[in-house]
Amino acid sequence: MSYVIDKLKKLKELESDLLEASSLEKNNALKEVAIAIENNRDDIKRANQKDINIGKENNMNEALLDRLMLDDERIDGIIEGINTVIDLQDPIWKSEKVWTLENELTVSRMSVPLGVIGIIYESRPNVTVDAFSLAFKSGNGIVLRGSSSAINSNIALVHAIKEGLRKTDISEEVIQFFEDTDRKHVMSLLTAKGYVDLVIPRGGKGLIDLVLENAKVPTLQTGEGNCHVYVDESGNLDEAIKIVENAKLQRVGVCNACETLLVHENIAEDLLPRIYEMLNNKAEMVGSERVREIIEIERATEEDYGTEFLDYKIAIEIVKDVDEAIKHINKYGTKHSESIVTESYTNVQKFTKMVDASTVYVNASTRFTDGGVFGFGAEMGISTQKTHARGPVGLEQLVTHKYVVLGSGQIRK
Amino acid sequence: MSYVIDKLKKLKELESDLLEASSLEKNNALKEVAIAIENNRDDIKRANQKDINIGKENNMNEALLDRLMLDDERIDGIIEGINTVIDLQDPIWKSEKVWTLENELTVSRMSVPLGVIGIIYESRPNVTVDAFSLAFKSGNGIVLRGSSSAINSNIALVHAIKEGLRKTDISEEVIQFFEDTDRKHVMSLLTAKGYVDLVIPRGGKGLIDLVLENAKVPTLQTGEGNCHVYVDESGNLDEAIKIVENAKLQRVGVCNACETLLVHENIAEDLLPRIYEMLNNKAEMVGSERVREIIEIERATEEDYGTEFLDYKIAIEIVKDVDEAIKHINKYGTKHSESIVTESYTNVQKFTKMVDASTVYVNASTRFTDGGVFGFGAEMGISTQKTHARGPVGLEQLVTHKYVVLGSGQIRK
Repeated sequence: MSYVIDKLKKLKELESDLLEASSLEKNNALKEVAIAIENNRDDIKRANQKDINIGKENNMNEALLDRLMLDDERIDGIIEGINTVIDLQDPIWKSEKVWTLENELTVSRMSVPLGVIGIIYESRPNVTVDAFSLAFKSGNGIVLRGSSSAINSNIALVHAIKEGLRKTDISEEVIQFFEDTDRKHVMSLLTAKGYVDLVIPRGGKGLIDLVLENAKVPTLQTGEGNCHVYVDESGNLDEAIKIVENAKLQRVGVCNACETLLVHENIAEDLLPRIYEMLNNKAEMVGSERVREIIEIERATEEDYGTEFLDYKIAIEIVKDVDEAIKHINKYGTKHSESIVTESYTNVQKFTKMVDASTVYVNASTRFTDGGVFGFGAEMGISTQKTHARGPVGLEQLVTHKYVVLGSGQIRK
Repeated sequence: MSYVIDKLKKLKELESDLLEASSLEKNNALKEVAIAIENNRDDIKRANQKDINIGKENNMNEALLDRLMLDDERIDGIIEGINTVIDLQDPIWKSEKVWTLENELTVSRMSVPLGVIGIIYESRPNVTVDAFSLAFKSGNGIVLRGSSSAINSNIALVHAIKEGLRKTDISEEVIQFFEDTDRKHVMSLLTAKGYVDLVIPRGGKGLIDLVLENAKVPTLQTGEGNCHVYVDESGNLDEAIKIVENAKLQRVGVCNACETLLVHENIAEDLLPRIYEMLNNKAEMVGSERVREIIEIERATEEDYGTEFLDYKIAIEIVKDVDEAIKHINKYGTKHSESIVTESYTNVQKFTKMVDASTVYVNASTRFTDGGVFGFGAEMGISTQKTHARGPVGLEQLVTHKYVVLGSGQIRK
């Protein structure tokens, strides 16, 4: 416990320094961090090669090895990410609301940092820098717990970040890192009441469930996306095929990819053969008996409809109407991103209102749910919970608020 | 478990009905509820008298008996509360942000109900109706678990609410109530993952700690207020005395009352005797050795500074400067409401920025932290946590958001 609490205590002590740091100071520090990453490029690549070699020895699969890998292009991307965050407006000490009460008290609702943010993440080492930049710009201390498979890469990146911070007046201790990836420290973090203001798990269902089961501190669920495309009777079929192709195939390992296709029964015989043709040899298709009467694919299990494949696989179902589509989505979905292809105004209204998800699309691919795309500049993940923040988590979602009330001796009658 | 899950399942089934109900329908239903409470006035008073009699038999103290009591005036207040909520703008399906991306996707961030809200509350039966009105207006189903000491009053109030709802097209099942106050059902509610979207405990530290310790569902901490008034060297002492008097004495059993007075050392000899004179025979004063060199009061323990007395009692401490005051507050406070009395511009900046609380005041009583006072119309409590909502919890805090993205065939490149 003390391994974790000691780190968190350091962050708590630095909260006021971070709150007092001006935007200029924070941006200059981020510039120094970018320079330090550039200067440490070779060390970072060497450390990453070590992780890759260990991964290969342990028969890590190609997809995971690819997520783990840092080459020059990806390091360029990390540096570019820092520059993006530098360009974003400081989210702290901003107010969209100032009002005056009858008794002349002036109330403003000001944004302030959350305090200390914890991130538990899986293999991608770029998260180390992305998460630091966002937390730092929003005035938060950060503690990072990456996976053991990326430990050498992460240590090298944290080393570079701290080297950059040492060039500034801001303490390098504003970033804390778990060099020891023992699972018990994750448990300590999740139960460190009063020391951490928000813990964000970034990873698969296993990690998210672990966090939900054990956390005694506030958490933010991100990233589980069992997303659907529903093609309505009135939908443009050419458009529908392009949208399904994009949502399923453009990138399969991401949370906003499409996992299930729902088709209105009146167009199933037209659409499904074309979908089959488009996906054949590119993705595995599974479907219900009704679907299999039209196209020759494997039978879908109940479980398939509830699974985020993150793979070249799609489940297909035929529905009676938009209401049945909404019901299916609200039953099996993870409240991430859902799309309808339709020309019906009434069904647009129904679908956008009744589907329970962070983001609902009309005639567009689900792949756009992303902080960068939405104009937030960068993101910490996509929240699939309803409290605190929903959808892409950018700088604006890493803050809390404080009411500042200015008076002249007012007392309550 | 099934006692609770059955109730929650009913609420989940009604989510879409609540979402589809127009503001007019919701307001008309609230009007029917107000009429039903008026029509059931005698039954409600009789049921309340039963609770009062049982309370007296069990030697319930005067303060608690007063909180439990419903007379005509308080029932008028309950009805007035419903009318206030009727007059508030519907918080659902509103957007303050609509923007268009480069690819012509139009994104709007729409407010939508959370879904199902659970309230666990202590003796005041008016909460039954207040909480229902706010949850209902914001499109949420609600499950209520009141204290056993108010069970007859609560049952009578819920009966009236349901009678009102039966006059409308909205199901009376949108309000669920625990007739059985067995503690095990509280545990079931706190662990009903997937069935309840937010649980709000309204009560003392014991209840809040129980919830924090056991909840596996999202919760909102409310109401614990160890609030401070700090009188700075430059503060107007006449104003300071009035503010302390108001913050401490105007109502002692509330979360925004002052529990500790902090005084700058350079004015302690002037101010403390005047404070003593004002509070003497009205409130018990305890202080540090330094304070006791100036006024003859009992010694404060470390625990006193960390206690929300909710009583005619105040702890007093002398501090070196505003920095020490901020440090004391951030150490002992509960992040609720904190006030500085000062003429120093620099200290206003420091105090408002560095004090970690939902609401910070300059030259005003802490007693104003209240949804009604702030113009929110009504409130579900004062949140002392940083995530989801902070400060008074009104209609706007009982919603979540959904991004609605309108396209014309866009796919991601």
